[in-house]
Amino acid sequence: MKTPIVIAVTGAAGQISYSLLFRIVSGELFGLEQPVILRLLEVTPALEKLHGVVMELNDCAYPLLQKVIQTDDPKIAFKDADYVFLVGAKPRKTGMKRKDLLESNAVIFAEQGKALNEVASRHVKVLVTGNPANTNALITQSNAPDLSPSCFSGMTMLDHNRAIGQLAEKCGVRSKDIKNMIVWGNHSETQYPDLHHATVKGLEAFSLVDDAWVVEDFIPTVQHRGGAIIEARGLSSAASAANAAIDQMRAWALGTEDNDWVSMAVFSDGSYGIEKGLFYSFPVRVSADGEGTIVNDLKIEEFSLERMQETEQELKEERLAVQHLL
Amino acid sequence: MKTPIVIAVTGAAGQISYSLLFRIVSGELFGLEQPVILRLLEVTPALEKLHGVVMELNDCAYPLLQKVIQTDDPKIAFKDADYVFLVGAKPRKTGMKRKDLLESNAVIFAEQGKALNEVASRHVKVLVTGNPANTNALITQSNAPDLSPSCFSGMTMLDHNRAIGQLAEKCGVRSKDIKNMIVWGNHSETQYPDLHHATVKGLEAFSLVDDAWVVEDFIPTVQHRGGAIIEARGLSSAASAANAAIDQMRAWALGTEDNDWVSMAVFSDGSYGIEKGLFYSFPVRVSADGEGTIVNDLKIEEFSLERMQETEQELKEERLAVQHLL
Repeated sequence: MKTPIVIAVTGAAGQISYSLLFRIVSGELFGLEQPVILRLLEVTPALEKLHGVVMELNDCAYPLLQKVIQTDDPKIAFKDADYVFLVGAKPRKTGMKRKDLLESNAVIFAEQGKALNEVASRHVKVLVTGNPANTNALITQSNAPDLSPSCFSGMTMLDHNRAIGQLAEKCGVRSKDIKNMIVWGNHSETQYPDLHHATVKGLEAFSLVDDAWVVEDFIPTVQHRGGAIIEARGLSSAASAANAAIDQMRAWALGTEDNDWVSMAVFSDGSYGIEKGLFYSFPVRVSADGEGTIVNDLKIEEFSLERMQETEQELKEERLAVQHLL
Repeated sequence: MKTPIVIAVTGAAGQISYSLLFRIVSGELFGLEQPVILRLLEVTPALEKLHGVVMELNDCAYPLLQKVIQTDDPKIAFKDADYVFLVGAKPRKTGMKRKDLLESNAVIFAEQGKALNEVASRHVKVLVTGNPANTNALITQSNAPDLSPSCFSGMTMLDHNRAIGQLAEKCGVRSKDIKNMIVWGNHSETQYPDLHHATVKGLEAFSLVDDAWVVEDFIPTVQHRGGAIIEARGLSSAASAANAAIDQMRAWALGTEDNDWVSMAVFSDGSYGIEKGLFYSFPVRVSADGEGTIVNDLKIEEFSLERMQETEQELKEERLAVQHLL
């Protein structure tokens, strides 16, 4: 049996974690041979509810679950953590503005960044799911100066998967027939899902769909999908968000498939003219040992460039709003 | 790629299904090579919410998910179904009596039994999760006279896993170190979790724990675990119930491990003097091709026999209450 890995999850009594934890521990993330130690963080008032979740984890008799720690202290939660899911954030309710989210969440992520800096593994991979994910990733990273910026990413895999889902439905194919999807920028309604490099069973996506569908249907549907889910379910995306968190962390830890990539919000190195240091969603290839590289040699159309800059602009504005915490 | 299998789930917009569907479709049930067609049933008022869940399934870009059907008609939901999870039931709220559950659920399961009888695969495996699970399994099965009684089971795998979890914690071992647990009887507070045949790392469980712990702690903790989860979470067990549903269906479809068994509520063949035709939880071994057999040669202590009969008695009373639907 392998050495256990330490996985920390924040907001561990919340809806997304409720969909996430049981899948992590069943082996979906790192396989059926990899034992796991879970370190779960919640705010103090939610510890009783978290205890109920841990009782349920215990009631699953998972072969891989070695130990569970429950705490309201980030320094305990992140101790020696190899993989961290920063899920905890105030959820977006119907009609709530992103700016309200920004303010109420920024302080939390600054504190967690400091704790990670102090106690996490030096090779930790921190995936920020809590919204606004890109800027929360920036806050977390900038409060952890002793860790490499490559230890952090924000989750845009949900948008990536949503874009694949839409294109697969349109073309009447299975999702696995689609490669090289890209979502650029912010995990927000300014994100730019880009079909210019995507293929469907090896054919260029743009040869199968018309421009009007892309502009009037595909792009806005993916951008506003979060709101549409809230409309239909009465609750924000939880199971699909948890699924994307697993997909993104798995790709980030174990590598992307040959001839494909994933979209994830990473520390910009200036590729495509995007300001260095912003957490911006790029196409990223990851080697089998977990080294991520921005795919930086794609030809970008004027149509795309405008949208890429628009979502960059929003990220700059978000950064400005939390400047005092960076 | 294999031929897709058809999996039907009822109560598909409910909490347990929300934990179940995403794990089925990710490949946890039948592996990463087995495509799946989902047929989802809900009551009419929940179809909009179900649509939201299906949107989220689509947003996962699952490679294995071939097709999803949403309906409020059992005959559409169960059409050619190979595996059926009868999850939909009115959930137990704090303080609610099982008798209230019985009355409000029995009619639903009678209708579903008739639909299964008419349209499901002749080799269907129907796992009843909705409470009261044993008697709902009985109602379903008795309304499906053209299907073998071996096509039906009620879920006691959750109790089985809970019992393993408790013993593992007590002995400071991992759940996989524990074999041959048994939960007898009804998935209710009369159930009898039995340690007499269980082993811990190959040692008899009873040589490691004292009788007082078994009687005063272990048995009542497992029996009342559902209520304890409701107390802690404010909601009934969902993720652990979904996990047990996967465990039970996987064992039932693909076989139990060598030298071990699972507990599941099956049509009694009279083993251990339990009345024939009741759905009673026994230790069951399953061959690799999905043939289940009650383990019927265990030596039963007087202590156990009394408890096994007490839970049998409750099942007879439940049957009496729904006699008009059988």
